Amino acid sequence: MSGGELGYAVGMAATAAFAITAVAAIKDRGVDLFGVLVLGAITAVGGGTVRDVILREPVFWAQDLNYLWVALAASLLAFVARGLVTRGQTYAILLYLDGLGAALFALLAADKAWRLDFAWPAGPVILGVMTGIGGGLLRDVLAGRPTLLMSRELYAVPLLVACALYVALLAWAPHYRVAGLLGGVAVSFALRAAAIRWNLAMPRWLLTRA
Amino acid sequence: MSGGELGYAVGMAATAAFAITAVAAIKDRGVDLFGVLVLGAITAVGGGTVRDVILREPVFWAQDLNYLWVALAASLLAFVARGLVTRGQTYAILLYLDGLGAALFALLAADKAWRLDFAWPAGPVILGVMTGIGGGLLRDVLAGRPTLLMSRELYAVPLLVACALYVALLAWAPHYRVAGLLGGVAVSFALRAAAIRWNLAMPRWLLTRA
Amino acid sequence: MSGGELGYAVGMAATAAFAITAVAAIKDRGVDLFGVLVLGAITAVGGGTVRDVILREPVFWAQDLNYLWVALAASLLAFVARGLVTRGQTYAILLYLDGLGAALFALLAADKAWRLDFAWPAGPVILGVMTGIGGGLLRDVLAGRPTLLMSRELYAVPLLVACALYVALLAWAPHYRVAGLLGGVAVSFALRAAAIRWNLAMPRWLLTRA
Repeated sequence: MSGGELGYAVGMAATAAFAITAVAAIKDRGVDLFGVLVLGAITAVGGGTVRDVILREPVFWAQDLNYLWVALAASLLAFVARGLVTRGQTYAILLYLDGLGAALFALLAADKAWRLDFAWPAGPVILGVMTGIGGGLLRDVLAGRPTLLMSRELYAVPLLVACALYVALLAWAPHYRVAGLLGGVAVSFALRAAAIRWNLAMPRWLLTRA
Repeated sequence: MSGGELGYAVGMAATAAFAITAVAAIKDRGVDLFGVLVLGAITAVGGGTVRDVILREPVFWAQDLNYLWVALAASLLAFVARGLVTRGQTYAILLYLDGLGAALFALLAADKAWRLDFAWPAGPVILGVMTGIGGGLLRDVLAGRPTLLMSRELYAVPLLVACALYVALLAWAPHYRVAGLLGGVAVSFALRAAAIRWNLAMPRWLLTRA
Repeated sequence: MSGGELGYAVGMAATAAFAITAVAAIKDRGVDLFGVLVLGAITAVGGGTVRDVILREPVFWAQDLNYLWVALAASLLAFVARGLVTRGQTYAILLYLDGLGAALFALLAADKAWRLDFAWPAGPVILGVMTGIGGGLLRDVLAGRPTLLMSRELYAVPLLVACALYVALLAWAPHYRVAGLLGGVAVSFALRAAAIRWNLAMPRWLLTRA
């Protein structure tokens, strides 16, 4: 398996994880199967869609429908096995996979923005974070849930840190781009995993209201 | 009246129906006339706007402002006559017209995506459904109402079924495209009309929580 | 200082005002610093972003990142000094500056739409108003607050009036374009300032429910 193939496989696993955690998130709201499929797919591909619209590029899932099929299949599976996916251990694994997926998508988006020379140096960081959290934001808005922005959860900050580090690397050591991509994913995932594992949240003095 | 002219006339009637049912939907929330015009217009043209952005085409209402004028005029009318449009029989007629309009817009959007060779075969179905329900989703999000995705209403599924059938026809019998368009609108409208008439909803076993 | 430089300086001040009033608006919801920066930036540049997507132009902040830096710096400042920015007199000054900024952005957006010959004559008015209120709408939706469209506040109507007057001037006296831009900003700001000063709202007979 080449590096590209491995990245693709992880991307597909992450797409599925996004869709499944989406179903887990909306499960207790009495959504029907149609809503499950729509919200699962939007969570999985929504962030990248917003990125591509802002970059004025063709939307990525139209170029490779596998992202969509995987998202829909995973949503269907999660609907059928919805008792299982929200159970302790399974859900924990999914959370970590979701964190890995968000890291991967964010870094790849930062890289895409850099290749297209979009708004250097802030552009790649912004589009990276936006791609990682955009789908979840759309899902929560459409499902009438409080969005990530309203919580103290450490979900986006790991993406922000890793994308900023990646941009710094592209600026000062562009030869290490591939290593930087992998390192960025690792940094983001490590921070997110620590947040999940030890239940870390934003410290209270960084809230508008303690 | 040619087929094209008939389609155009139905499209305008449907645009008006979208705007009027939007006003009926938000009526009890104390919106002012400005909000009524904005939400009416967004409901009527929002779905097609999202479709065109994703297709990277010029937005349709910029090419033919009649859609917008009709939506604004219908919203104004619905505001003035808001006591009437929510009354039993008038509202029932509007609901059917709204279902016909959603069917027409969805099928035309699927056809547009097909003509532009967008993400065959899933693309035309997705953009068809998105065009049919997108305006209503935007309206509900902006008005702070629970969206369609959170209800058991049979609104989107008829569009999904009809767009999928239309794509199947384009795949296997493209010569019957025009008949397929009309048939698709008929199928979608028939399903929606049945759902309105007999108060059909998604069966409970297709909900995440019964 | 040339006219262009003055406009640019007012634009930056307005961007900062948008971001700061955004932080004031969401302050009591317990948002963390990351959410503050994201919501501040979205409020400041969101409307123009939607405009550029609909115009199929490159997003304006990617062309000149100063808008973004100013929005982020202002959000950070507002977070640190959040006790101050919501205090009586400071907040009042910010409200007026926000009104001036919305006026400036709306008129400049109408002018941009006119230069690109977008959907004359409704297009410039619609994109003008959308640019003035779009960022705030996005912020409120993401923060789970009732949007402007659900209130009787006179925020958007001044923009609508001024953009419509500007379009009329472009139609009948295009030679006075620059004067028209300045006059439009003045009209919009005067109406908004009056609404703030005397607490004016939409009259009850223009509400769907009195």
